[in-house]
Amino acid sequence: MNTISTLGSHCALQVLKGAKDEGFKTKLVCEKKRVELYKRFRFIDEMIIVDRFNEIKEKKVSDELVESVLIPHGTMISSMSKEEIDRLEIPFFGNKKILYWEADRRLKNELLKSANLTIPKSFDSYEEIDRLVLVKLHGAAGGKGYFLAWDKESFMNNFRVLKEKGVINNENELFIQEYVVGVPVYLQYFYSPINNELELLGIDKRYESNVDSIGRIPARYQDIISASYNVIGNQPLVLRESLLDEVYKMGDRFVNACKRLVEPGMIGPFCLEGVYDEDANFITFEFSGRIVAGTNLYIQGSPYSTLLYNEPMSTGRRIAREIKIARENDKLDLILSKNF
Amino acid sequence: MNTISTLGSHCALQVLKGAKDEGFKTKLVCEKKRVELYKRFRFIDEMIIVDRFNEIKEKKVSDELVESVLIPHGTMISSMSKEEIDRLEIPFFGNKKILYWEADRRLKNELLKSANLTIPKSFDSYEEIDRLVLVKLHGAAGGKGYFLAWDKESFMNNFRVLKEKGVINNENELFIQEYVVGVPVYLQYFYSPINNELELLGIDKRYESNVDSIGRIPARYQDIISASYNVIGNQPLVLRESLLDEVYKMGDRFVNACKRLVEPGMIGPFCLEGVYDEDANFITFEFSGRIVAGTNLYIQGSPYSTLLYNEPMSTGRRIAREIKIARENDKLDLILSKNF
Amino acid sequence: MNTISTLGSHCALQVLKGAKDEGFKTKLVCEKKRVELYKRFRFIDEMIIVDRFNEIKEKKVSDELVESVLIPHGTMISSMSKEEIDRLEIPFFGNKKILYWEADRRLKNELLKSANLTIPKSFDSYEEIDRLVLVKLHGAAGGKGYFLAWDKESFMNNFRVLKEKGVINNENELFIQEYVVGVPVYLQYFYSPINNELELLGIDKRYESNVDSIGRIPARYQDIISASYNVIGNQPLVLRESLLDEVYKMGDRFVNACKRLVEPGMIGPFCLEGVYDEDANFITFEFSGRIVAGTNLYIQGSPYSTLLYNEPMSTGRRIAREIKIARENDKLDLILSKNF
Repeated sequence: MNTISTLGSHCALQVLKGAKDEGFKTKLVCEKKRVELYKRFRFIDEMIIVDRFNEIKEKKVSDELVESVLIPHGTMISSMSKEEIDRLEIPFFGNKKILYWEADRRLKNELLKSANLTIPKSFDSYEEIDRLVLVKLHGAAGGKGYFLAWDKESFMNNFRVLKEKGVINNENELFIQEYVVGVPVYLQYFYSPINNELELLGIDKRYESNVDSIGRIPARYQDIISASYNVIGNQPLVLRESLLDEVYKMGDRFVNACKRLVEPGMIGPFCLEGVYDEDANFITFEFSGRIVAGTNLYIQGSPYSTLLYNEPMSTGRRIAREIKIARENDKLDLILSKNF
Repeated sequence: MNTISTLGSHCALQVLKGAKDEGFKTKLVCEKKRVELYKRFRFIDEMIIVDRFNEIKEKKVSDELVESVLIPHGTMISSMSKEEIDRLEIPFFGNKKILYWEADRRLKNELLKSANLTIPKSFDSYEEIDRLVLVKLHGAAGGKGYFLAWDKESFMNNFRVLKEKGVINNENELFIQEYVVGVPVYLQYFYSPINNELELLGIDKRYESNVDSIGRIPARYQDIISASYNVIGNQPLVLRESLLDEVYKMGDRFVNACKRLVEPGMIGPFCLEGVYDEDANFITFEFSGRIVAGTNLYIQGSPYSTLLYNEPMSTGRRIAREIKIARENDKLDLILSKNF
Repeated sequence: MNTISTLGSHCALQVLKGAKDEGFKTKLVCEKKRVELYKRFRFIDEMIIVDRFNEIKEKKVSDELVESVLIPHGTMISSMSKEEIDRLEIPFFGNKKILYWEADRRLKNELLKSANLTIPKSFDSYEEIDRLVLVKLHGAAGGKGYFLAWDKESFMNNFRVLKEKGVINNENELFIQEYVVGVPVYLQYFYSPINNELELLGIDKRYESNVDSIGRIPARYQDIISASYNVIGNQPLVLRESLLDEVYKMGDRFVNACKRLVEPGMIGPFCLEGVYDEDANFITFEFSGRIVAGTNLYIQGSPYSTLLYNEPMSTGRRIAREIKIARENDKLDLILSKNF
């Protein structure tokens, strides 16, 4: 267990850089088409080249990973089914079951409610839409295919376009959620089951195309614009300090809800994703039960990690640190998924 | 004087982290409800637990602070009256009188004008509104309750809502200012009365709910939106280098105006807050005569502090450095308010 | 060649700070009116004071620079004609010819096309406008004078205003480009001709007045707004990791196109400037064939430079590093323009 591995996308550079900084060997599962990119980075010790990421379920590839700890991220979730992830015979950082809850909108909402977080109203059918709503595809698709609607008709107009494009087949693949007006904020947490402590490691907002371009075009020119939410990148943020107390309390409540509903509970990084409305209340519309890409902003550490660590501590490095501490204290069973 | 203290909110983490980095002991006046938050941070040596911040005016609490230097910030200003701050018998970093000028919009404008800064037109009465205006509550309320109006009627509509909510009682509590179109910029300065030097330590923009969400919603869906300016956080910025000369000149003029009007003048951090219009002219709509929360972005230092210091220099740390230099040179009287 | 020099504007502070960090002496060509600003920074060893930057073409000034390497930037391009730059008898970092291609919109597009980059449709005459277009002035003017139009009439309305202001004289000074909806992204590259390697050193977006203020004003109040693109500053960004492969490929293609069309090719920093549309395709609307001001964000290094270097590596410092490596390996001819 002196090697850390991950799939070559999402936050792989951060994860393996952090692993190297903590003294681990690093191994990247890399798609053939991306080899040129990843070989530019000296902290990647070894690459396992595949055609598609889900080849890690095959013995040939998983044999090369079985001596490493595999770090999951958003691309793993969108490349493999939960059954495939479940059957992986590779030491796996974190709680696999939380990834299933993340991937299912109904379970996701159950977990958020159990944590006593405020969530937007959701609608079972497009027939019920009575206000501005955001319509989302099920599964982690990075905001692609999301759209706004405010009644049955505007819903159907957008739905037909997506259907013609082949993005979706029927309305049930869509999740209809009240559009909450407010500024988006992504809270990057890390929970250590070893010392039972929660850390806020960073905060960001997403940079999405084309919704983040609307504000640069005067209203009278906006006829050409439809709102879409394809995540292009991330921008750094700090929060008002008076909001931090509730930020930590929300994180604690979420960690406790995971302990109750998805044992053994949260392990390592997660993210609460929502908006602050004009009264500075946080409405949580999503969570990610693993490292999020917004942490890539803080490869040099964030203002928040700097309050906790006297060295540059990215979330990727924090994961490696946790594995190192677990290994030294013979507590790897507390941070790895054991279902194999 | 080897302890630095502050109230637990606003920028307390930055201030005490900076104090610790400069070798000071650190003391936090902490509201009971926030103890869980602040005890997460190892650089806080001691907490004085209170129910409300204004208990620091009571002997029991102030006795515990009298050996420390107290760093004021925005939460102190909004938690205590100027008379209460004035009577505090605690060594106080900075010039208390500037805080009074900051809290009074008429004095504030007088100081800005004396510094030859361009300020927006203000209106004595809502009857005079003849263009787009921003209406603000008196006092440092973090943007809460601000609204846009363009005539008597739209003013009264918003006014009634705030009155019904109990936020305000009459029109005189409101300050009506021309809305200047341009991009908001907050200039974080530090003035040292010891070496008579001005430093630009960072630049930010605020992240406000819900005005910063408007640009993510197409015009045709904006009926549900009213513009409000509740500060949720801050985002980092750098300026065009050709603007820096005027940035320093504006800072110098402001420092000189403070020397003339509010003796002994500015001490330590302050902020000029405004917009750059489309001709790159800066229109100043506010100042803060003390550390601002936007400096929390730069706990690791900013691009601008890095040009001045070969170590990570937050504004909080810069304050501690100034106290250290003053102490070593027997010049504490130059940086502490002496009205006790 | 142990001195690095540049003109006092744009990114001079970053460039000379980086030079100092790499052990060079530093020399600034400084306009009289800016002396007060630049003498605040201790890493500037010497200032050559001028009335206007183009005095560097005069022997008196150029004699003082002939022992240094001069780093060009945007202000140099907008202060001097290409003939003046060409005739400079000062060791010049980079390929002067690329600056000419940058300054000519037709050559610029030829180079972008040769690199197989997607560019917006351009219109030869305002009579042909059939969609939303962005109208730009020729030359590097920092976004000043840009405007939106969607037909002949809206074009002429804006044109007349600029003509009355004396900003332009006739329509031929304007470049009409399709407005591509998407989020703006500026990709900061560095190409080393010594080791034949491309590095992504940072990513930013511009902060422009007043287009970046539109999104803070509800549609119903926007009548007072015209869209203008005066660059006030820059904001940091990271990109989705899955986009990085194409980012590097685009950079490689651009470097190769420069080798073919503008020999000896690209030397040092350059920037591809465009938008990601809602399908995450990058449409390149500009390039800069030299250091861009957005790199000023990363004086402490960026998330991307941190993946490549174990020390804070700004683009300014990277330039100095390249000169140092070239000098040590007797390869200065690979990185300096030799046309004198």
